[in-house]
Amino acid sequence: MSRANRTAISPKRSENYPEWYQQVVRAAELAENSPVRGCMVIKPWGYMLWENMQRVLDDMFKATGHKNAYFPLFIPVSYLEREARHVEGFAKECAVVTHHRLEAGEKGKLVPAGELEEPLVVRPTSETIIGETFAKWIQSYRDLPLLINQWANVVRWEMRTRLFLRTAEFLWQEGHTAHATREEAIEETLRMLDVYADFAENWMAMPVIKGEKTEGERFPGAVNTYSIEALMQDRKALQAGTSHFLGQNFSRAANIAFTNEEGNRNLAWTTSWGASTRLIGGLVMTHGDDDGLIIPPKLAPSHLAILPVLHGKADRSGILEYCNRIKEELGATTYHGRNLWVEIDDRDLRGGEKMWSWIKKGIPTWIEVGPREMASKSVFLGRRDKGPKGRKGVDLDEFLATFPQVLDDIQDNLYRRALQFREDHTKRLHCKDDFYAFFTPQNRELPEIHGGYALAHYSGEPEVEEQIQKDLSVTVRCIPQTDGGEPGTCIFTGKPSAGRVVFAKSY
Amino acid sequence: MSRANRTAISPKRSENYPEWYQQVVRAAELAENSPVRGCMVIKPWGYMLWENMQRVLDDMFKATGHKNAYFPLFIPVSYLEREARHVEGFAKECAVVTHHRLEAGEKGKLVPAGELEEPLVVRPTSETIIGETFAKWIQSYRDLPLLINQWANVVRWEMRTRLFLRTAEFLWQEGHTAHATREEAIEETLRMLDVYADFAENWMAMPVIKGEKTEGERFPGAVNTYSIEALMQDRKALQAGTSHFLGQNFSRAANIAFTNEEGNRNLAWTTSWGASTRLIGGLVMTHGDDDGLIIPPKLAPSHLAILPVLHGKADRSGILEYCNRIKEELGATTYHGRNLWVEIDDRDLRGGEKMWSWIKKGIPTWIEVGPREMASKSVFLGRRDKGPKGRKGVDLDEFLATFPQVLDDIQDNLYRRALQFREDHTKRLHCKDDFYAFFTPQNRELPEIHGGYALAHYSGEPEVEEQIQKDLSVTVRCIPQTDGGEPGTCIFTGKPSAGRVVFAKSY
Repeated sequence: MSRANRTAISPKRSENYPEWYQQVVRAAELAENSPVRGCMVIKPWGYMLWENMQRVLDDMFKATGHKNAYFPLFIPVSYLEREARHVEGFAKECAVVTHHRLEAGEKGKLVPAGELEEPLVVRPTSETIIGETFAKWIQSYRDLPLLINQWANVVRWEMRTRLFLRTAEFLWQEGHTAHATREEAIEETLRMLDVYADFAENWMAMPVIKGEKTEGERFPGAVNTYSIEALMQDRKALQAGTSHFLGQNFSRAANIAFTNEEGNRNLAWTTSWGASTRLIGGLVMTHGDDDGLIIPPKLAPSHLAILPVLHGKADRSGILEYCNRIKEELGATTYHGRNLWVEIDDRDLRGGEKMWSWIKKGIPTWIEVGPREMASKSVFLGRRDKGPKGRKGVDLDEFLATFPQVLDDIQDNLYRRALQFREDHTKRLHCKDDFYAFFTPQNRELPEIHGGYALAHYSGEPEVEEQIQKDLSVTVRCIPQTDGGEPGTCIFTGKPSAGRVVFAKSY
Repeated sequence: MSRANRTAISPKRSENYPEWYQQVVRAAELAENSPVRGCMVIKPWGYMLWENMQRVLDDMFKATGHKNAYFPLFIPVSYLEREARHVEGFAKECAVVTHHRLEAGEKGKLVPAGELEEPLVVRPTSETIIGETFAKWIQSYRDLPLLINQWANVVRWEMRTRLFLRTAEFLWQEGHTAHATREEAIEETLRMLDVYADFAENWMAMPVIKGEKTEGERFPGAVNTYSIEALMQDRKALQAGTSHFLGQNFSRAANIAFTNEEGNRNLAWTTSWGASTRLIGGLVMTHGDDDGLIIPPKLAPSHLAILPVLHGKADRSGILEYCNRIKEELGATTYHGRNLWVEIDDRDLRGGEKMWSWIKKGIPTWIEVGPREMASKSVFLGRRDKGPKGRKGVDLDEFLATFPQVLDDIQDNLYRRALQFREDHTKRLHCKDDFYAFFTPQNRELPEIHGGYALAHYSGEPEVEEQIQKDLSVTVRCIPQTDGGEPGTCIFTGKPSAGRVVFAKSY
């Protein structure tokens, strides 16, 4: 069976990108759809990846002074109603608990009973319920800033779901902070945007653009919403983390007030910021190739798969001992805050099948170890970023000594590759016709993949955005913090523009 | 203000134990009631404690071969119905989601809309929903054993709630495993019981009895339920972790079947096991005293509070530098798997108030550092287990060199104290009259605190248990794995008994 013309994932990215994504998630054993509509099962390999992401983000949050806490899953409907735009944003798609018991009804079927006086909503986000508690915790300026984070599950009743990218239930963290001044709250909002960008670029190896959202894309109830945006390989943008300056909107709704140094009562200024299991979807679509997932080494559940070659007259116990020595030595090595994790795969499978199962799962490296390697004190090393054709024999001592550098090199390579991809698909556009052409399929054979980031001057009228969205399914992803450049003229209206904004199709 | 006759917590344990408990949880800033009925807010100090518990348990689960995954929050009612005793056990107190939207109703108030075809229950436990997935994952004997754990929130609509001990929503872990044989599943059930006991005794410093539950206390749907039971200071038992052998009950309900080596289809044998934030309640009631919480050092969010004494003409910056040096040196020291955590409390409070705030929070140690300590290169050390009267001056170098041993000594001391307490309040009883006397208040001044563990022969009739529960609110906590002793005669029926069982009042 020649693999020359085959890829491990079918279809290829260029053939059917959405289906390629589903197949990678499946083949890598990251997650699957559950029997409960819109809810996913996160499988062990996917959950380990999430745990690694959590650990790094959590350390970053703690290093910036935040503490974790936990707040209720349920929100009384009356709380949601206190902030008008907030409830409007979330009421259309929320799970509503109306009863607290089941009873045998007709034909013995269980039916809801014990109706609640006030329905409860399963939290879609926790500004209102946490605000209620903040109002109790905050009395004086001495209680500020209050810097809290929560790791939790949230539910938004999405009608069209896709694993990780859009699910009814998802896992996330939500930071909620309160400050004495507007300036401090804005500073916090931007600090956490920087934390997300740092995590995306330096851990996920996923380049992002930091910027502010336009009004239409703002979090319901926020004064300003900032996001990091990453470009996927189908040239659509993925919003990968958001940070909101909430002004005094939620303070007013929940009466989060404090006595300042002069003895006057003031409303606090609040922020919120969140990142979710959606990041995993972003990782898949940034690095994955037609052979499956590729996980950046700094976040990989396992760094190395050792594949003993045991067929024929091989010295089975000798080879396994050789493998175990490698595992032990590397397992005691620290790599970016945790020990290297090494798997010995001694399953009773053919060598090729074994190797391909790890390639599909995106492990950064693997080594094959058989009689030949044992005899020459070497390993046969494969790198996921270079693929099976790039395998080569490496002296064992050299392998052990340089393994962390190999991983760092893979990490850097993935980042460079993704950055190059983004640069190749980012265009500065100077007129409306070019803009429409950019976002219209040019190649009839690949109708799905076109466009990318368009950097263009835009004067900010919501009607313009609506029209572009209607015509092209393109939106303003953000008003970038940098790269916006000098003032100019809006390519849609001819009016003055303060700088270029980033347009793209998006998830 | 003399503190000689006062305690930091009022009432004392001996005066009103349930109220003492609430006050300790409040004063230690562990948690508080939320505005949502029965749901708690876990505050940062309480959540850090939970994170430490999670980390240790998670390491133990991974060391015994388990992997984490995540399953849906919602369970279709029809799934629950598949196991008759299971649904009977949980249908009476569950949150039921019936709608997926809110709409403006009469007078503009939001009302539930978008009724679901089938109501969903917020998971009270996940045997049924995880079983559904296991049925897909397991095809052959090669897929077994399947060893999965989930960290999650669950909801049981309790009518009478108490922080950590019984709340509508709580955080827990639930292990779910599937095996090819009955023996392997039983082995797993008992292995995880041992893990819980290890954690309770060696990390929480909380002695426990391991044993099997009688039929009346069994998990709904289990064949056998095992638990660890700890004795609280009001001499009531707390069930602190459970491990269930589920036989083929849930395999049958969800059709978890596999092809064995001979090619025949068999139902798998499953287990489940869980421990929750209830453990925090157990920790409070095992170690707390009339001055507040006491946290065993191996789980403490912070190990040491440094209290600089800055009043008067003290050399403020010199003292703070001295404190910082101590913090830096200890902060680089590993203690049972994580770095020592040190807080410098430079709040603008009086020394006494500062010290008492840390005592109430249960920090294992604190040091006061003022001009005198600086001059003599020493610290004034307090140990939470010995109280403020036990404070003493210690040479700085000695303090730094021996600090981890001091913490270990406190850990051991807490365990010994709790074990002594349990031994003092465990009686072997030989007749029914003594049994009834043991569980009846003897001291009219302290009507609440009496009883303890009664070890007595019992022949196992459920009616006897029902009568005892009715008369005394006493139940069989467990049939102990050890300490049951030789066969004898039931003190209630005169019939033969296989060994003594443990009776107690309980939470």
